[in-house]
Amino acid sequence: MSYVAVLDAVRNGPASTRPEIADVLHLGRNLVAQRVAWLLSSGLLAEGELSRSTGGRAPRNLRLPAEAGRILVAELDALYLTVASADLQGGLTGFVREAADINDGPERILNRVADLFEQKSDGVGVPLWGIGLGLPGPIEFASGRPVSPPIMPGWNGYDVRGHLSQRFQVPVWVDNDVNVMAFGEHRKGLATSYEDVIYVKVSTGIGAGLICGGRLNRGSQGSAGDIGHIPVEEGRAILCRCGKLACLEATAGGGAIVRDAETLARTGDSPALAAVLQRVGSITLTDVIDAARRGDRTSNELLVRSARMVGELISRVTNVLNPSLILIGGDVTEVGDVYLAEVRQVVFQRAMPLATRALRIEVAPDGDLAGLRGCAFMVIDNLLAPDVASRWISRGSPVGVPDLV
Amino acid sequence: MSYVAVLDAVRNGPASTRPEIADVLHLGRNLVAQRVAWLLSSGLLAEGELSRSTGGRAPRNLRLPAEAGRILVAELDALYLTVASADLQGGLTGFVREAADINDGPERILNRVADLFEQKSDGVGVPLWGIGLGLPGPIEFASGRPVSPPIMPGWNGYDVRGHLSQRFQVPVWVDNDVNVMAFGEHRKGLATSYEDVIYVKVSTGIGAGLICGGRLNRGSQGSAGDIGHIPVEEGRAILCRCGKLACLEATAGGGAIVRDAETLARTGDSPALAAVLQRVGSITLTDVIDAARRGDRTSNELLVRSARMVGELISRVTNVLNPSLILIGGDVTEVGDVYLAEVRQVVFQRAMPLATRALRIEVAPDGDLAGLRGCAFMVIDNLLAPDVASRWISRGSPVGVPDLV
Repeated sequence: MSYVAVLDAVRNGPASTRPEIADVLHLGRNLVAQRVAWLLSSGLLAEGELSRSTGGRAPRNLRLPAEAGRILVAELDALYLTVASADLQGGLTGFVREAADINDGPERILNRVADLFEQKSDGVGVPLWGIGLGLPGPIEFASGRPVSPPIMPGWNGYDVRGHLSQRFQVPVWVDNDVNVMAFGEHRKGLATSYEDVIYVKVSTGIGAGLICGGRLNRGSQGSAGDIGHIPVEEGRAILCRCGKLACLEATAGGGAIVRDAETLARTGDSPALAAVLQRVGSITLTDVIDAARRGDRTSNELLVRSARMVGELISRVTNVLNPSLILIGGDVTEVGDVYLAEVRQVVFQRAMPLATRALRIEVAPDGDLAGLRGCAFMVIDNLLAPDVASRWISRGSPVGVPDLV
Repeated sequence: MSYVAVLDAVRNGPASTRPEIADVLHLGRNLVAQRVAWLLSSGLLAEGELSRSTGGRAPRNLRLPAEAGRILVAELDALYLTVASADLQGGLTGFVREAADINDGPERILNRVADLFEQKSDGVGVPLWGIGLGLPGPIEFASGRPVSPPIMPGWNGYDVRGHLSQRFQVPVWVDNDVNVMAFGEHRKGLATSYEDVIYVKVSTGIGAGLICGGRLNRGSQGSAGDIGHIPVEEGRAILCRCGKLACLEATAGGGAIVRDAETLARTGDSPALAAVLQRVGSITLTDVIDAARRGDRTSNELLVRSARMVGELISRVTNVLNPSLILIGGDVTEVGDVYLAEVRQVVFQRAMPLATRALRIEVAPDGDLAGLRGCAFMVIDNLLAPDVASRWISRGSPVGVPDLV
C-alpha cells in the first residue's frame, strides 16, 4: 500500500524528497526511508540532484527513472499511422510515420504496426512494459475493442489488444485517437496545468477528447466527446456518413470543406481551386489552405465558415463542461491564426460569460506527438495505478511487469 | 495513511470484514486488526452482524456508524427552502419546507436557515460534523461563494460559508442545487450503480448536474451543467433573463410554459387556461399540468413542446458525455409519463446509437430529498477525504472534527 503511495507522490509531483513524501503522506520518516530504499533497489525510483536545504542537510530529489522501462506506442488515423518508442517520462524516440489505409482492416494494419515495433532498436535491453494504441473511432476501453466505428467498419469488435499482446507478450491498452491526444497534452504538454480541457480535432472528421476534473472522461461506452455528429443548423440538407442529417462533421469537417471546394471549383466561383482541380483531378484540404493563403477569397470563406460552425458548437459544449482550456488540433491547424481567431470570437460571444471567464483557446500544433505521448502515459499510468502496482510490488517483481497484470 | 484506507474501503463498499479489507488493500491481517481496533475505539467504525463464513470462523461486518455524527443540510430554490438533519449514512430527519424568496438576499435567507437549524432537536447529543447547502446558481466550490448567479443577483460573491460557519463553528460546504441533487442520487438513490449520469432539472429554470466517471463534474468555474442557456432553434425571438436570445430555459422552462400559457389564455386558444386566468389573475405550471390532465389540448401541447425541446438538447449533451443514466427532475416531473415519453423518444431518435446503447432515462421524483442527501454526503465525503481525514486521525480526535479542518 504505502509503496504505491510513495511512488505516486513522486510520480505525480506533490513530493520529490523523502521529507516531502513523509509530509504529504503523513507517514513516519523511517517508514518512508524504508519504502524509498526498496523502490530504489527495484529500479522504480532513482536519485537525482540535491534539493534545497530547509535547514540541516539538503535532501536528495527522487524521480521515476525514464530509462527503467519502455513502451511501444502507435497512433492510427484514417490514412496514415505513426509509431514510436517511449520512455517512462513520455519521451519519444524512433518516430515513424507512413501512409496506411485504415480500411485495409485490423489484421493487415496491426501486423504492419507490429512489424514496425519489432524494427525498433532503440531502448533494446530495457524491459518492454507495454503497448499503447490510439484508433480513430469509439473504443470500449475495458476490452480494447472498437465499437461500431463509422470510419473503420471492418474493425468493429476486433480484439486489438489480443492481437498485439499475443505477439509481444506484454499488456496492451487501446483508446480513441482524440482521447490519447487530449491525455498526452494533459500529462505532458500544453494542458498539464489545466484540470478541465476539451481537445477538438478537426481533420477529415471532427471529434473531441475531454479531460474533466483532471481525468480523461470516456463516458459509459467510450463515445464521450463525439461532437462531430451533433446536428448544426446550416447542415440541414447534408447527409453524414453516420446516416444522420446535418452533422457538424458533414458540414464543417475537412471532408466537407474539400467537397464544397470541388463544387466551387466546378462552378467557377474559385478560379484558384478550378486550376488545381484541372491540374490534379481532385482537391485536398491543403490545396484549399494554400489557395486561401495566396488570396483566394472563396477558399478563405470556406475555412472561416468551418471555423464559425465549429466555434458555435464548441460554445455550447463550453456551457455544458465549463473548461479552462480548449485546444484545437487536427489538419485545420495548418490554416493558422484565421481559424483560431474565428473560433475564439464565436465562443466568447456565444457561451455564458461565467463559462468563459477563465477560458483559454489555443492551437495544439502536433497532435501525432501528443497522441503518442498519451498512449505512453496510458500504459504507464495503468501499470502504476495503485491496485495494479500494489499487486506486482507485493510479489516483489517490478521488472517483467506484463505477466503480473 | 492506512487508517483512512481502511475507513474508505468499508465506507465505499469494496470490503466489509477484516479479511476483505486485508485483501482489497494488500495489507497484513495484523495491521488491519490494529487499524480497525483504533477506528472502533474512536467511533468511526462499528461492528455489525456476522458475515458469511468462507471456512473457519465467520468474520464480523464493519460499517460507518450512522449515529456517530450529524450534518445539517439545506436546499434553497427560487421560491422556497428545505432543511433537514442527516446522519452519516445520509438518512434524513426533521424535514422542513417553507416558502422563501431567494431575492430577499443572503443575510435574511441564511439567518432563517440558521434559525431552522437551531430549532432541530433531532440528534442533539450527537456531535455536529458540518453543514451542507445547495443554492440555485453557479457556485465557486472552493470558496463556497455564488458567482454571477442569474436568479439571485444579490448573492453574487457573498461569503455563504463564512456566514454559517461563524454561527455554528463547524465546516460548511456549498454547491449548486442541481449538483447536490445529482450527487445525492449518485451516493444513495436512483443513480448509485451508474458512473456517468446527467440529472436535468426542469423547473422555472433549467439546469443539469453531471456525474462523470463516478465523480461530480463542476467544471473550472462551477458552471458545468449550465444547459439552460444553450440556444435552441425555436427560441430565436425570445430574450432570456441572462441577456441572450433563444436560450433553452427561456423557450422550454417552467417560466416559459407559464408565459406561453397566459398568452394562450388571453387569445382564447385554451378555454381551460382562460378560466383559471379569469378566476385567479395568473397561471402557474401546476395549473397548466392540471388543465392538460383534464383534457385541455393546448396545455398538453405546451408541455409536450417543452419536453421535445428539452429532449432535443439532451440528445446533443448525450453525444458529448455518453451517460448511462439520465434523470429528469424538477417541477415537470408532476406532468408524469407524457413528458418522460417525449424526452425519451427524441433522445433515442436524435443521439448517436452508440451513445444511447446502454442509456436509461428515468424520472427523479423527489429532487428536494435527493438534494438534501447530496448536501449531507458532500460534507461527509469532504471530511473523510484521505487528505483531510488523515490529518485529523493523526491528531487522534475524530470527534469534534470541525476545529481540525
